[in-house]
Amino acid sequence: MKPKIESVILAADLVGTVVFAIEGAMTAMHGGLDLLGVMVISFVAALGGGVIRDVLIGATPPNAIRDWRYPALTFATGFLTFIFHHAVQAIPGMLLVVLDAAGLALFAAAGTSKATLYMIRPFVAMLLGTVTGVGGGVIQDILLARVPTVLHSDIYATAAFLGAFLILTCRRLGLSMTTSALIGGTACFALRLASVLLGWHLPKADGW
Amino acid sequence: MKPKIESVILAADLVGTVVFAIEGAMTAMHGGLDLLGVMVISFVAALGGGVIRDVLIGATPPNAIRDWRYPALTFATGFLTFIFHHAVQAIPGMLLVVLDAAGLALFAAAGTSKATLYMIRPFVAMLLGTVTGVGGGVIQDILLARVPTVLHSDIYATAAFLGAFLILTCRRLGLSMTTSALIGGTACFALRLASVLLGWHLPKADGW
Amino acid sequence: MKPKIESVILAADLVGTVVFAIEGAMTAMHGGLDLLGVMVISFVAALGGGVIRDVLIGATPPNAIRDWRYPALTFATGFLTFIFHHAVQAIPGMLLVVLDAAGLALFAAAGTSKATLYMIRPFVAMLLGTVTGVGGGVIQDILLARVPTVLHSDIYATAAFLGAFLILTCRRLGLSMTTSALIGGTACFALRLASVLLGWHLPKADGW
Repeated sequence: MKPKIESVILAADLVGTVVFAIEGAMTAMHGGLDLLGVMVISFVAALGGGVIRDVLIGATPPNAIRDWRYPALTFATGFLTFIFHHAVQAIPGMLLVVLDAAGLALFAAAGTSKATLYMIRPFVAMLLGTVTGVGGGVIQDILLARVPTVLHSDIYATAAFLGAFLILTCRRLGLSMTTSALIGGTACFALRLASVLLGWHLPKADGW
Repeated sequence: MKPKIESVILAADLVGTVVFAIEGAMTAMHGGLDLLGVMVISFVAALGGGVIRDVLIGATPPNAIRDWRYPALTFATGFLTFIFHHAVQAIPGMLLVVLDAAGLALFAAAGTSKATLYMIRPFVAMLLGTVTGVGGGVIQDILLARVPTVLHSDIYATAAFLGAFLILTCRRLGLSMTTSALIGGTACFALRLASVLLGWHLPKADGW
Repeated sequence: MKPKIESVILAADLVGTVVFAIEGAMTAMHGGLDLLGVMVISFVAALGGGVIRDVLIGATPPNAIRDWRYPALTFATGFLTFIFHHAVQAIPGMLLVVLDAAGLALFAAAGTSKATLYMIRPFVAMLLGTVTGVGGGVIQDILLARVPTVLHSDIYATAAFLGAFLILTCRRLGLSMTTSALIGGTACFALRLASVLLGWHLPKADGW
């Protein structure tokens, strides 16, 4: 059974990375970046969250650059998205949203797990799990000189945080890491999709 | 005597953290961020400077995330500032300026001391002390897609640098860490307040 | 022969640092920063790439702050550029482009070499070499709330990457580090200058 679960996780990780890289590349092309800029944003959007997490917990060099296959995969994805950007634009928006929510759930679960391995306290592990999920998008937006989307619209980091919270709660209740990650990841995925479908947003002070 | 001084330092640290978090939350609300964004900016404004310092000197995980009480305090402050933002807006501006100057003095002194503990050379310890004081505001402004205030107006980083400089000078003259920190912190506080009251600014090239 | 080469490298390193610091200071003055902002941008533009590299590979404290002479040199350069900015503006643009290309070649070569010393895999060492060359400019542009130039115009990071690629290829072919660095650095320098003289740019998606 073990190998099967690991294959699923690896496949999910690769899919999440590629989806984040494609989305980053499209955002970069809309922002008028050149080929190199598109490839850099692909890398950053897909792997930036993990890099922040690893630098903060002292796990240097970060996994995203220690294993050359991840940067190579994101650069290749950025390059191909650039070349075939007309075809990529034809991908249904809803499919991207679903895949992105899956990537978010997976990254948040992986980040939370990794933080607990480094003896980080639960509350901070939740924050690091959230950062793993949303950090790439934040760096992408900083590089595009924009206020990070995650800070002013959508239920996105909130979904990642909920997932991280549930993982650690399940762990404390004695469930295995795999079961906990499945429960937390599913909740993150469900909340993210529900918020898109139902148009949920967090409150703003102006509206009060 | 010792416990009393330590209590004063702890109280000052908490006050500084809360003041920086409140100011960050207000800036974030003015920038149109949602509840999550406000809480994130509170965290970043209060603890970002210390995180940069700790990452640069290799003291990972940074203190601001190793001790869960600090992030929890800043998130709670951000949340309460969001809820009670009408009340917060009624706080006299001058009180905030005074408390902020106290926070700056304290953070700069603490950052300088910590850097010297890590065997950092004096000149660089001064820079790290300054970064501890102003780094949170810089990350806040980057996230809000603005040129950091500290780079173009007010005597702010300059006051932190003066404080750090005096601390290391006093240490070299043989004074105790406590006395040195008091002298440097007071000078930072005084210069910051004087510059606000008297409208001092650093020169710009355009005016030359 | 050895001492002579090391003197050349040291001289080149200092020239590269000063040129990057002068360019950063001029950009900061155009952006309306005050004296402190100009000095900070000088530091960041000259040393930021190396700091990112060192933090990512876990070589903390980064060399740029461990050796106090580098920050002191960049702050002094920023200060002098601020004072004598009319004289600096009279420096021929083409001279700055040539010196900047030399600095880029040197930083990229140094960054690639250092990354290989830390047992980083070749592909990632190339990325880190590139980051060493262009990272300072990226942080500078982020602090000025602009999309980093390197992401949307000019052949700049591409030249650094080519240099890093050639260095590692030469190493694999058995050439010495010095010879490899000379070949890679020269190629970076030549490609950068050729792209400026001939107006080369990377493609953008909009033009496709």
